[in-house]
Amino acid sequence: MPSECPPPGYRPRESNLSFVLKNPHDVEFVDRPMPQLSSPKDIIIAVNYTGICGSDVHYWDHGRIGHFVVDEPMVLGHESSGTVVQVGSAVAGLRPGDKVAIEPGYPCRWCAECLGGRYNLCPDMVFAATPPHHGTLTGFWAAPFDFCHKLPLNVSLQEGALIEPLAVAVHIVKQARPTTLPGASVVVMGAGPVGILCGSVAKAFGATKIVFVDVVQAKLDFARDFGCTHVYLSQRISAEDNAKALLGQCALEGGADVVIEASGAESSVQTSLYVVKAGGTYVQGGMGKANISFPIMALCQKEVAAKGSFRYGPGDYKLAVELVASGAVQLEKLVTSVVDFGDAEKAFHRVKEGSIGKTLIAGPNTCKTHTGMVGQQH
Amino acid sequence: MPSECPPPGYRPRESNLSFVLKNPHDVEFVDRPMPQLSSPKDIIIAVNYTGICGSDVHYWDHGRIGHFVVDEPMVLGHESSGTVVQVGSAVAGLRPGDKVAIEPGYPCRWCAECLGGRYNLCPDMVFAATPPHHGTLTGFWAAPFDFCHKLPLNVSLQEGALIEPLAVAVHIVKQARPTTLPGASVVVMGAGPVGILCGSVAKAFGATKIVFVDVVQAKLDFARDFGCTHVYLSQRISAEDNAKALLGQCALEGGADVVIEASGAESSVQTSLYVVKAGGTYVQGGMGKANISFPIMALCQKEVAAKGSFRYGPGDYKLAVELVASGAVQLEKLVTSVVDFGDAEKAFHRVKEGSIGKTLIAGPNTCKTHTGMVGQQH
Amino acid sequence: MPSECPPPGYRPRESNLSFVLKNPHDVEFVDRPMPQLSSPKDIIIAVNYTGICGSDVHYWDHGRIGHFVVDEPMVLGHESSGTVVQVGSAVAGLRPGDKVAIEPGYPCRWCAECLGGRYNLCPDMVFAATPPHHGTLTGFWAAPFDFCHKLPLNVSLQEGALIEPLAVAVHIVKQARPTTLPGASVVVMGAGPVGILCGSVAKAFGATKIVFVDVVQAKLDFARDFGCTHVYLSQRISAEDNAKALLGQCALEGGADVVIEASGAESSVQTSLYVVKAGGTYVQGGMGKANISFPIMALCQKEVAAKGSFRYGPGDYKLAVELVASGAVQLEKLVTSVVDFGDAEKAFHRVKEGSIGKTLIAGPNTCKTHTGMVGQQH
Amino acid sequence: MPSECPPPGYRPRESNLSFVLKNPHDVEFVDRPMPQLSSPKDIIIAVNYTGICGSDVHYWDHGRIGHFVVDEPMVLGHESSGTVVQVGSAVAGLRPGDKVAIEPGYPCRWCAECLGGRYNLCPDMVFAATPPHHGTLTGFWAAPFDFCHKLPLNVSLQEGALIEPLAVAVHIVKQARPTTLPGASVVVMGAGPVGILCGSVAKAFGATKIVFVDVVQAKLDFARDFGCTHVYLSQRISAEDNAKALLGQCALEGGADVVIEASGAESSVQTSLYVVKAGGTYVQGGMGKANISFPIMALCQKEVAAKGSFRYGPGDYKLAVELVASGAVQLEKLVTSVVDFGDAEKAFHRVKEGSIGKTLIAGPNTCKTHTGMVGQQH
Repeated sequence: MPSECPPPGYRPRESNLSFVLKNPHDVEFVDRPMPQLSSPKDIIIAVNYTGICGSDVHYWDHGRIGHFVVDEPMVLGHESSGTVVQVGSAVAGLRPGDKVAIEPGYPCRWCAECLGGRYNLCPDMVFAATPPHHGTLTGFWAAPFDFCHKLPLNVSLQEGALIEPLAVAVHIVKQARPTTLPGASVVVMGAGPVGILCGSVAKAFGATKIVFVDVVQAKLDFARDFGCTHVYLSQRISAEDNAKALLGQCALEGGADVVIEASGAESSVQTSLYVVKAGGTYVQGGMGKANISFPIMALCQKEVAAKGSFRYGPGDYKLAVELVASGAVQLEKLVTSVVDFGDAEKAFHRVKEGSIGKTLIAGPNTCKTHTGMVGQQH
Repeated sequence: MPSECPPPGYRPRESNLSFVLKNPHDVEFVDRPMPQLSSPKDIIIAVNYTGICGSDVHYWDHGRIGHFVVDEPMVLGHESSGTVVQVGSAVAGLRPGDKVAIEPGYPCRWCAECLGGRYNLCPDMVFAATPPHHGTLTGFWAAPFDFCHKLPLNVSLQEGALIEPLAVAVHIVKQARPTTLPGASVVVMGAGPVGILCGSVAKAFGATKIVFVDVVQAKLDFARDFGCTHVYLSQRISAEDNAKALLGQCALEGGADVVIEASGAESSVQTSLYVVKAGGTYVQGGMGKANISFPIMALCQKEVAAKGSFRYGPGDYKLAVELVASGAVQLEKLVTSVVDFGDAEKAFHRVKEGSIGKTLIAGPNTCKTHTGMVGQQH
Repeated sequence: MPSECPPPGYRPRESNLSFVLKNPHDVEFVDRPMPQLSSPKDIIIAVNYTGICGSDVHYWDHGRIGHFVVDEPMVLGHESSGTVVQVGSAVAGLRPGDKVAIEPGYPCRWCAECLGGRYNLCPDMVFAATPPHHGTLTGFWAAPFDFCHKLPLNVSLQEGALIEPLAVAVHIVKQARPTTLPGASVVVMGAGPVGILCGSVAKAFGATKIVFVDVVQAKLDFARDFGCTHVYLSQRISAEDNAKALLGQCALEGGADVVIEASGAESSVQTSLYVVKAGGTYVQGGMGKANISFPIMALCQKEVAAKGSFRYGPGDYKLAVELVASGAVQLEKLVTSVVDFGDAEKAFHRVKEGSIGKTLIAGPNTCKTHTGMVGQQH
Repeated sequence: MPSECPPPGYRPRESNLSFVLKNPHDVEFVDRPMPQLSSPKDIIIAVNYTGICGSDVHYWDHGRIGHFVVDEPMVLGHESSGTVVQVGSAVAGLRPGDKVAIEPGYPCRWCAECLGGRYNLCPDMVFAATPPHHGTLTGFWAAPFDFCHKLPLNVSLQEGALIEPLAVAVHIVKQARPTTLPGASVVVMGAGPVGILCGSVAKAFGATKIVFVDVVQAKLDFARDFGCTHVYLSQRISAEDNAKALLGQCALEGGADVVIEASGAESSVQTSLYVVKAGGTYVQGGMGKANISFPIMALCQKEVAAKGSFRYGPGDYKLAVELVASGAVQLEKLVTSVVDFGDAEKAFHRVKEGSIGKTLIAGPNTCKTHTGMVGQQH
């Protein structure tokens, strides 16, 4: 049951308008059936804001990512915040009107990975906007209550939508064996939103030297605001030479303690292995080509600890919310544009064109006057 | 000072005959100056047995390994056992007559790596038979006493020479996060001596399924004696297909908990990434080409923990000796041939020809009758 | 649905006779209602064998353990094996007739502890024979299928009942940071069943020196068969003096790498802190007095890592079954007596009297001729 | 050789005046022989500032700490900064005039602890002002160069003297498994200098809730400036009741993730075990009575990870300097008083009287005008 008086930030359940991808670049707004509570531990949320990431754009552009193919029309979107409108009878800690960040992947809770503390590796994961599952660019969303993370008063709904990429960054940085982070030098390859957030998170975990690396100067300029100590503009030279120049410019003789690869580009992965110090840690967070030319002997002889990172797991969303609430990570600076739901496709075009920062799409039931929204959120 | 009555296993200090590489395939026996104690914590050892490994053969064959070039004549060899003949005034726990396994690399003890518990990464390491440092195919050897590991009564001098490759294996298996080994499935790519020993060590650390993989059936046949539960003969098919066939034949649905790459071959590294399970561990122990085609997205999306392994560090030699003394690893089975010092080059030819098991070279002062030697050792 | 032809080891569902504790030393056999499948992922098991442990006896003797009070009549027992008789529609990997070890505690699968990989700390755990939940000394038992662990052909139903204490031991030894176990010296304080199993597990994980310690010589004599390298009979002297004598007798100069306290006795805990080496690990597995006199400065100045251990978590049962199947742990030697269900209380008396090894109670539907049973099990 | 023109902050080598403890409360100023370089890797430092800690005061007050007895007159002091005046021929990275924080304990570099990365547990440690070794309340000090940590321009010599207690805090917080610190709640028992610094370090490593606990309100008032989120004044009630009140006041339902005991008081240790959550971490950093009444079952059943902490090890000083340089820890606020060398004993009296913050003693060759000094330091 919805609460009696409508909380701010959403309108009555008038429609469940959804942004549906039918074929590459062929989208449609469809009023789909309202979601229902399927368990007493589920809740229904009015979606307020949704960010767009590279994988959304890849589906929209190509209709597939690797083995995942959009065979049937699919609602896009998975970085969302919303307002609770209905809660099941066994829900604890949430009630209608609460603002939440929506964790968009639901594991089985029964397999060895789920019980073993790594639900992101659950083979039966149901993940929003990953075929055949619909996404969150829709009016209302149903989810188990423990995957909806209440936002404190000082975290806005726009920030709430970006808890998803921040949780990705938290998970990546955690792979870098946090034991090594206090006092560490951390080089982040790729200054897109996730890369920037990785740098902010590493700093919050005690790293004292943060270097952002990119091929686009404008991205480095934008990233400077996110607490890095150095930036390095990659040159059109060999990976080994880029590494040498980077280490020299940043006074990192001997190599960086930690390298986080957040671009997925082949040359960037190669550079990572030359930048990391002997005995250091390298995390592969960025997605890219399946197979690349890789300096395997650098990994072997420098005894590098390498780690893949995939989505987020136990505690990552909670920690992401706390980092924003405590001021350690400044998410709001990342929002460079907000569009109405009806203009959703504009956000896809912007990301494809390489826009800086994040574009958010307001939910179909979210108050349209953005200026007003900001006032309402707190 | 040598002990008064000569201990068994070595003859009086009559010569310091050494096996010297001048140019590729151009070797010479040289009577070099006797080593001296350079510190009160040093000892002098009469070398008894030396094993030959791929890197020795590579220097002999090519005169270099990567950046390491044999510019000046260099004594080869670094897998040795010996008998203590002289001890400095500050030596504790060793006296003339003691049998020891010789750890052949000496770190600086002052850098961050040495004090931080990773002396194998010491940038000032002095390592035997790595240019410009001479090796152990010589009559007498001087070393800091704490890098000479006393052999218990039930470990022979021939086994003592193979403590070196066993320490390499111990170090590799330790990289596989020993926490994950109890009850684990471990696939070892490459059934050469180090690969075989990795399997034995993994079993000793609690792994319950051990699979040896090679392209040579004879190596797998030899390896069967070393406690594996399965072997897999690699086929001339794609890495992904080899992985699928291996997992099927060995009932490893979902992938192996741990994969140890001990061959250095490109296809073997690739297969490793397809064989390891999501959330599993892969260790690169084998040396090979500097750059290879690598399935980086398998590492990323399966959240694999990858680790390079380089030589051995604190505690590895000690643990290797204990594993032999306790019977957990049966080193003596690995010795397939012993040659006199004067026939040292034969050992190099054998390894190059792909001989199975290890060939040992007796020291120039070691009793020549091997049958007799065996009797003397215990 | 039960399978068509009755599998060996259980009789038709004629009764659900249960062993009920009403008040201390006041027990009754009650034919309770048959359990039903409450979820499509549940199964029904005919209970075959149940072991008795100290906590069962403590409830029987005192009607309570700490805050847990037996207010209502409660079925005792939680160390059980059984035969599957019915499976829910969503069960995978189990079918009627399968022999299983029953994991007797069921976590909520939703809290931070469950999703974080530590379900043994779930605050909503439903644990057999812990008030107000009934135990497994009953005819039939319903449980989620993933907490029922299939026994391989070479593991008997009697061994299956002892997977529970073995899982306790596995969990305890895992707390000892398995990283430190290969080659380690491990002292186990208390040579009861769990202590003995801790020693066996530590050996299976690579420990090379295992010392059992007890105040009862007969327990040490029994324990000698379980792979220890030394035993030490505690004397009526101070904890520090006992530690000194133990270390001297066992050639453990400098202290033991790992100490596992499996008795709960105050003097034994104290001795543990004096026996463990600087930088070593001590695990408290045994239950005893809530508050004791504790050498806190030994913990501080020797920088000891101490760890509590409580029940078992993800993977522990699976690993316990594998250790028995692989022959690494020999559970069958631990069974010193088997009694009929009607004689269940005899088992409680025996444990209270300090019997050596484990007494099993056959299930009410288990074939009564034990000699015959053994034949039927395989 | 000293540098040609005298660097600021020290005077020519005119005397090596030292503050010597002969018997409890019986001290003397003695002009001791100048220290000499005993190795080409040694340096000589003019001592500038020295802080006084509880152990110094304990020797002064009682002539002993446990087994360590001041049998011969001993120079006190071990928390010092200074200016390099002479360097050996093999010294790298330091030259006369450099300001350094002096790490006051010198391990052997040869034992298993030193090579294993835990030199603080070296059994042959030579530690300043621990009998029979003299301390740093002296004019000049000789030390291996790698234990003298160069201060960046923005770290003053007064802060340099407090790098020692900060390194103690860094080491303590590292024991709390830094993996668990990001986003964690950390309760610090005891708001003395080390406790305060532990809170600051935990915050720098990502902890988001920091609670200082003490029995003295003035200490809590002083500590408030060091970045805590809550303080709790301990009451004269039971440890369990104090824990309950603390958790309630600080909104820590379920317990704190990490508890750091930095007082050594019995009731405080007890409270720690009731404050820490199930599965949480407790570090014993404070020194106190050797044996106390301890809630061992709380440790066992909550599966607490407990860790002792002793001095500091590899990387701790380096990290401490970086935390000050980066502004993460504000050491200068901790200095509440500076006295001339001739007034050294005043500092001991102040600490004994329970003064808030730290009192520094200027070195005998340090410029006397403190106002001037501050100007000179940068």
